[in-house]
Amino acid sequence: MDIAGTVQMVAITAFAMTGVIAVSSRGIDLFSACVMGSLTALGGGTIRDLILGVPVFWALDVNYVWVALAASVVAFLGKPLLDRRHLFQLMLYLDAFGVALFAIQAATKVWDLQFGLPAAPVALGIVTAIGGGLIRDVLAGHPTLLMNRDLYAIPVLLGCTLYVLSLILLPDYRAISAFGCIGGIFFFRAAVIHWGLKVPRWLITRPRQE
Amino acid sequence: MDIAGTVQMVAITAFAMTGVIAVSSRGIDLFSACVMGSLTALGGGTIRDLILGVPVFWALDVNYVWVALAASVVAFLGKPLLDRRHLFQLMLYLDAFGVALFAIQAATKVWDLQFGLPAAPVALGIVTAIGGGLIRDVLAGHPTLLMNRDLYAIPVLLGCTLYVLSLILLPDYRAISAFGCIGGIFFFRAAVIHWGLKVPRWLITRPRQE
Amino acid sequence: MDIAGTVQMVAITAFAMTGVIAVSSRGIDLFSACVMGSLTALGGGTIRDLILGVPVFWALDVNYVWVALAASVVAFLGKPLLDRRHLFQLMLYLDAFGVALFAIQAATKVWDLQFGLPAAPVALGIVTAIGGGLIRDVLAGHPTLLMNRDLYAIPVLLGCTLYVLSLILLPDYRAISAFGCIGGIFFFRAAVIHWGLKVPRWLITRPRQE
Repeated sequence: MDIAGTVQMVAITAFAMTGVIAVSSRGIDLFSACVMGSLTALGGGTIRDLILGVPVFWALDVNYVWVALAASVVAFLGKPLLDRRHLFQLMLYLDAFGVALFAIQAATKVWDLQFGLPAAPVALGIVTAIGGGLIRDVLAGHPTLLMNRDLYAIPVLLGCTLYVLSLILLPDYRAISAFGCIGGIFFFRAAVIHWGLKVPRWLITRPRQE
Repeated sequence: MDIAGTVQMVAITAFAMTGVIAVSSRGIDLFSACVMGSLTALGGGTIRDLILGVPVFWALDVNYVWVALAASVVAFLGKPLLDRRHLFQLMLYLDAFGVALFAIQAATKVWDLQFGLPAAPVALGIVTAIGGGLIRDVLAGHPTLLMNRDLYAIPVLLGCTLYVLSLILLPDYRAISAFGCIGGIFFFRAAVIHWGLKVPRWLITRPRQE
Repeated sequence: MDIAGTVQMVAITAFAMTGVIAVSSRGIDLFSACVMGSLTALGGGTIRDLILGVPVFWALDVNYVWVALAASVVAFLGKPLLDRRHLFQLMLYLDAFGVALFAIQAATKVWDLQFGLPAAPVALGIVTAIGGGLIRDVLAGHPTLLMNRDLYAIPVLLGCTLYVLSLILLPDYRAISAFGCIGGIFFFRAAVIHWGLKVPRWLITRPRQE
């Protein structure tokens, strides 16, 4: 429990910090940074809990809010430092880990509630992983990740689908499946970050303007 | 029940396909197409159910999700075909039918729950009909239909208002009212599509720039 | 109760009217004006109630909807009048009062539900006060207030934080705290409007482009 909690807070921290950095290039104030960081970190899980009809997770344990706020302030103050290539890369890898962790955790939560099986665990896993970032980009007036060729959500989709399949086919190996799928999503995302992979052209509609 | 179910799935299909086509002109990948199509088809009803405090409809019957996903994939793959004028027009008319059906269905659901009468059946009828499209446009960075002169939501407003009035004044003729109002919304939308009608100028504030 | 109700409706009116005026400069139709005005007035409280898991306030008392719609229509029709400096200034002050009132009311509601203390009363006070305006700006394609240097949300943050602190430290002086914090937020906002105050430079990240 203690280790799991620490791991979660590391992931929340990474989400909030990458969230602040993503929008701070245009110049935002400390308050907006806290809102943007917290929304990025907590927004996806909030939508998931509203759709599930369960109490929102950060109301049950307010530490999520404190960690998200503290990470946002640190990212705001430490932005000149975080702009350095090495530290920013580290944040991206921590973010990849957070995405993987939250997606599989969310899928597990939905599965245990027997909610809309088998589609909802995958759908809400994706919502939890990318929902906060979508809200942040919309409020900041940035193009959302749905409109670029970044491989951000597709690893989550594959990992959650594999996880749900393994829950159906191999119900006795739940913990192994969970660790395997968190690892799978993380390494896919890490490869995307390391090699700068993009969605292949044949998976894209050709713009009319061409 | 069987016919009603089939009709519903046709409407979901039309919503998802027009949703994908609306955003695919800039070039999006298959994953984003599925997200956009599903959000367009299921987003409005999801907001309605959250506000009503009832379980979301697609969790109770996951077939809605499968149909929305399948329609999104078909629209993505068949985009060159759907760009042809005749097929696209057909989709627009099916979409008009879906809008009419979902709005009156939603108003009925809200009415039966005795929720916020008499304003909520109209308000949530509109939310169900246009909410998914609004979310899609916001995530895609498109101007929403609230900011153009398209007559999309006004037929829904009139149809739902008429329906609620008839539920109050003629409670014994519910089925007839429902069919009449679905037909009314559909034919109004069909006329808008056919003749390219716009919101008349006197119903618009004059832009300051002029 | 009667006075409190009247005061509330004045605040809803101010929210809806400033909401319509904020988006009407580009030219919108009457229907969109009603949607934008109502969303501005009722949107923040709706998100708050969804997160709290309680019935939305405007379903329990539909008068909120009627007042918001009526105020939207009046703002739409009276826009040439409201563009005059004096009347628009009056609207801004009424809006400041509405922001103060709704924020502290929301914080009280969250506190009484013992929901996510002590972070949630502040967070949902802010959501209630600015959430509707954020939704409106996103749907209208405007930059949200999170991306400019306007001092809109920071007074709300300070007021709600002070209020929660006083609820913890001085539980016997609840009514006085509430009135004091409503007054504090209002006068801070009024000073911002009167002197055109902005977020000070040192509270802002420097844009990379400079």
